[in-house]
Amino acid sequence: MFIEKINSPKDIKGISINELIILSSEIRDIMINRISKCGGHLGPNFGIVEMTIALHYVFNSPIDKIIFDVSHQSYVHKILTGRKDGYICEEYFSEISGFANPDESEHDFFKLGHTSTSISLASGLAKSRDLKGNRENIIAIIGDGALGGGEALEGLNFVSELKSNFIIVVNDNNMSIAENHGGIYENLKKLRESNGEYPCNLFKAMGLEYIYVDEGNNIEKLIEVFLKVKDISHPIVVHINTQKGKGYKLAEENKESWHNRRPFDIDTGDLKKSSKAVSYENINAEYLLAKIKNDPQVVVVVAGVPSCIGFTKEKREIAGRQFIDVGIAEEHAVALCSGIAKGGGKPIFATQSSFMQRTYDQLSQDLCLNNNPATILVNRASVYGDKDATHLGLYDIAMMSNIPNLVYLAPTCKEEYLAMLDWSINQNKYPVAIRIPYNGVICSKRQIDKDYSNLNKYKIEVTGEKIAIIALGNFFQIGEELLNKIYRELKINPTLINPRYITGIDEDLLENLKNNHDIVITLEDGIIDGGFGEKISSFYGTSDMKVKNYGIKKSFPDRYIVDELLRENGITDYKIVEDIKKMILN
Amino acid sequence: MFIEKINSPKDIKGISINELIILSSEIRDIMINRISKCGGHLGPNFGIVEMTIALHYVFNSPIDKIIFDVSHQSYVHKILTGRKDGYICEEYFSEISGFANPDESEHDFFKLGHTSTSISLASGLAKSRDLKGNRENIIAIIGDGALGGGEALEGLNFVSELKSNFIIVVNDNNMSIAENHGGIYENLKKLRESNGEYPCNLFKAMGLEYIYVDEGNNIEKLIEVFLKVKDISHPIVVHINTQKGKGYKLAEENKESWHNRRPFDIDTGDLKKSSKAVSYENINAEYLLAKIKNDPQVVVVVAGVPSCIGFTKEKREIAGRQFIDVGIAEEHAVALCSGIAKGGGKPIFATQSSFMQRTYDQLSQDLCLNNNPATILVNRASVYGDKDATHLGLYDIAMMSNIPNLVYLAPTCKEEYLAMLDWSINQNKYPVAIRIPYNGVICSKRQIDKDYSNLNKYKIEVTGEKIAIIALGNFFQIGEELLNKIYRELKINPTLINPRYITGIDEDLLENLKNNHDIVITLEDGIIDGGFGEKISSFYGTSDMKVKNYGIKKSFPDRYIVDELLRENGITDYKIVEDIKKMILN
Repeated sequence: MFIEKINSPKDIKGISINELIILSSEIRDIMINRISKCGGHLGPNFGIVEMTIALHYVFNSPIDKIIFDVSHQSYVHKILTGRKDGYICEEYFSEISGFANPDESEHDFFKLGHTSTSISLASGLAKSRDLKGNRENIIAIIGDGALGGGEALEGLNFVSELKSNFIIVVNDNNMSIAENHGGIYENLKKLRESNGEYPCNLFKAMGLEYIYVDEGNNIEKLIEVFLKVKDISHPIVVHINTQKGKGYKLAEENKESWHNRRPFDIDTGDLKKSSKAVSYENINAEYLLAKIKNDPQVVVVVAGVPSCIGFTKEKREIAGRQFIDVGIAEEHAVALCSGIAKGGGKPIFATQSSFMQRTYDQLSQDLCLNNNPATILVNRASVYGDKDATHLGLYDIAMMSNIPNLVYLAPTCKEEYLAMLDWSINQNKYPVAIRIPYNGVICSKRQIDKDYSNLNKYKIEVTGEKIAIIALGNFFQIGEELLNKIYRELKINPTLINPRYITGIDEDLLENLKNNHDIVITLEDGIIDGGFGEKISSFYGTSDMKVKNYGIKKSFPDRYIVDELLRENGITDYKIVEDIKKMILN
Repeated sequence: MFIEKINSPKDIKGISINELIILSSEIRDIMINRISKCGGHLGPNFGIVEMTIALHYVFNSPIDKIIFDVSHQSYVHKILTGRKDGYICEEYFSEISGFANPDESEHDFFKLGHTSTSISLASGLAKSRDLKGNRENIIAIIGDGALGGGEALEGLNFVSELKSNFIIVVNDNNMSIAENHGGIYENLKKLRESNGEYPCNLFKAMGLEYIYVDEGNNIEKLIEVFLKVKDISHPIVVHINTQKGKGYKLAEENKESWHNRRPFDIDTGDLKKSSKAVSYENINAEYLLAKIKNDPQVVVVVAGVPSCIGFTKEKREIAGRQFIDVGIAEEHAVALCSGIAKGGGKPIFATQSSFMQRTYDQLSQDLCLNNNPATILVNRASVYGDKDATHLGLYDIAMMSNIPNLVYLAPTCKEEYLAMLDWSINQNKYPVAIRIPYNGVICSKRQIDKDYSNLNKYKIEVTGEKIAIIALGNFFQIGEELLNKIYRELKINPTLINPRYITGIDEDLLENLKNNHDIVITLEDGIIDGGFGEKISSFYGTSDMKVKNYGIKKSFPDRYIVDELLRENGITDYKIVEDIKKMILN
């Protein structure tokens, strides 16, 4: 095997095209080895094996600097830069992350996992190079799907002013995670169909030189074009037509489901663990499709990740014009929803907690300042959600709950989630955000309210004394367990409160607690800083009530184990009861 | 005067072109009447008098819906839609805001003041129209400067998929607040120079039909083109070449300084109150230019508002390639800075607190996750800053201080600000943000530290007992006054603490306070929710320390009076001392 001899990009310099082709095949083999066992982004990486080999053949990484957008397509780059064991040997799998990581290698320059950032980040490297008077190549690799994001478009617009070496490789596989959306994709299509000759050219319109490569999986052609642009004295776009999933038939045929694949059988492609269990993806899709059917004003909006609410291709077709995928354009999505709501429609926008960060200003200015009744669904907003440092769902409470006018709700079970969702869509007074539960689909027989228009009313689920546990959203079940533990250890029956509203304080209820409680515990599934519990502490600041806030300390944990992270943050029955004992003694 | 008869857009239908021309002149007169007395956006409004008259002549507002981007150019629209008295009569000036406002008129649809939002918001109105089966025209008016913002570009990309009536009027006056930056402006220039015929066309590349109007201040021509596109069945861009400041010679000649003008003498153009006083704009410009001169790695980055750090045209030229204006592209700006810092440069990005909201995700993911040592300067971050609901500087503490890895500093005087700025630029360990003071330029003889690398160390400025006042940043001076008031009223000498660090708690210092203090007061210049004080309350939650947090209650106050807002939020010497008395009694 060639791959055994490749420990750095130097090892591929000067070897023959035929050998590089064999290498590309071996790289696909070891990638499928890892992905079939622990999951990963198959389609994107299979599509750019040849491109990545050609890049490292021509350029001199890490002096020349290659920045991968999103970086979920940097597996080949990792394999060629000394990290192949992370794809070959199971015992090393966990050492190599699924995204670029400067802690792993000098060939990676940024931790990144959100799309559309590569051009801007790389242009910063180019600027600092120019200030130092250096001459290395700076190369940003960006997929077509990521091009529709505002940050990428801002970056493209900026780059022409650099007037120095800067190479933007557009990896055009004619797909986002799902199909692409927006006018620029028609333009990319026309460029592909005209072999790059179509005169109305997005990149040229943004002031950039342009070159097209039709055979984007042909190593020889790619080397030729990279040699041509190497050491170029000004910015240029190299538009490369690649095939997503190239080299694995199933992925070539069904690009969406092979974009990011859970562990599977290599021969059949079948998932190793089938997920027939009920999930919130399915629950959302079913509920929202029913709503769409019954109300022509309901519109579901997503930003490139329709799967977050289970909108498969089939379901998107059923929803028809009541479904909009804006592409990776969260800013536009939220402003669009504000406009739809202003016009009398009932928009629902859903995305991952981590990606919601892209649209803080639109949530505040475009939506909440205008108080328009859109519904915002926040997915994977949990310590149980994504565990990569680039995709954490720990910050949305701090980010969103301090925006004026927003009603941010934290349901504690399926029934409560659906009741809140239904209320939100049907009301027309408030912008409402809801954290989609993410600690498993928990059904509850507790009585659930249907109307949430009387804002900031917490619910006492268990009436007790001395100790009150205010357990928000996904951490309600931790509160339930704690109740039992406290009774067993201290023979105290605590009160258990489901606050439901993240964005406000139930002053009456909190005031009443003072009558027969001395201790309040808050539990929240996110960072403590700027979050829910601190507001309770502030409320009781001038009283004798003892308050302790539990949540995650502000940080960027990476590929963490949930139980370990909870323990590090003191969120275990044992530790909390010990804390309570100390509070009682004080 | 014609203007006297114009109480709604209906009143201009059918009158002659000559009469409309007279009207345009009268509108300029009454605009200058108001702007010369209370300030405002002269250049943008003078440039689109004819366009706005033509729009209201052709379309039927409010059935047809006109959305102005930024909306600082909606004065003419306001005058034509029943609000002319707000420009004629001084007693009505304060009733009409400088931005679109649905509370003022059914002809306004959104409260908005940030750029680049109009296409997205208006496309939402179009979508809801389509769902209802209605047929009215939806028109977004966007300036060339706003086109470079990510949200606008996301919106442009989306619009072609609407496939129904949607009219984007690009008001191209070849200026942002300062000159435009980025490749698309070369394209606009080529389109202007070719009468719209240049084949490589940004808008067409985004999938949109396109029409060009060269004489953008010619009412007759504008009416003609608007009649042509009225009731069009698909999206179209109408690119109109206008002259910023048209009709007021001084503004035509010096577009930047007449973009937004403080009160001035109509004949001479001179400002009524000259601002020779020292300002942080000047202090920043002087300091940063000296830094640039002495260190070739220093780069100052702004996003369309160079004035926020006093970078006039002359100073930008002196800074040369060590100054970058990315246009209205805050997302790109922060990612660019992260890249520059990674490459070894020393970037400083400055913008208004309100505009910093555009780049939450880039601050978090692109910058802080990577821990790159950029300096972020946050201007007008204060209750004393902008008072329009669209431009408030009250939210940055809640937004930024909960981002992991960020060091956010709040200086209390000029000397401390400059020391922090100098430390930040020279260090290479942390991403650092600094609130530029905004309560006047206060000089202090207190001893100022030079090194802030020992994070989260608060400073005791006055040692006292029983009561500790932790007074953050701009509210430090309120803390000083409070000290005296407390002594006079209660004969207690409180401790006064300058926390300096917004992003962390000085646990040792707070722990020590327990020895001889019973009460802690926190003061912060921003919303309380998610802010600084709540973290102090949380820290003391399990102790006997009584804590009260003072700041602004989460809300969107509009055109407020500072003293009134402070009083409403209990931030007066009198009220705080009364609160303390109650705490002492408890």
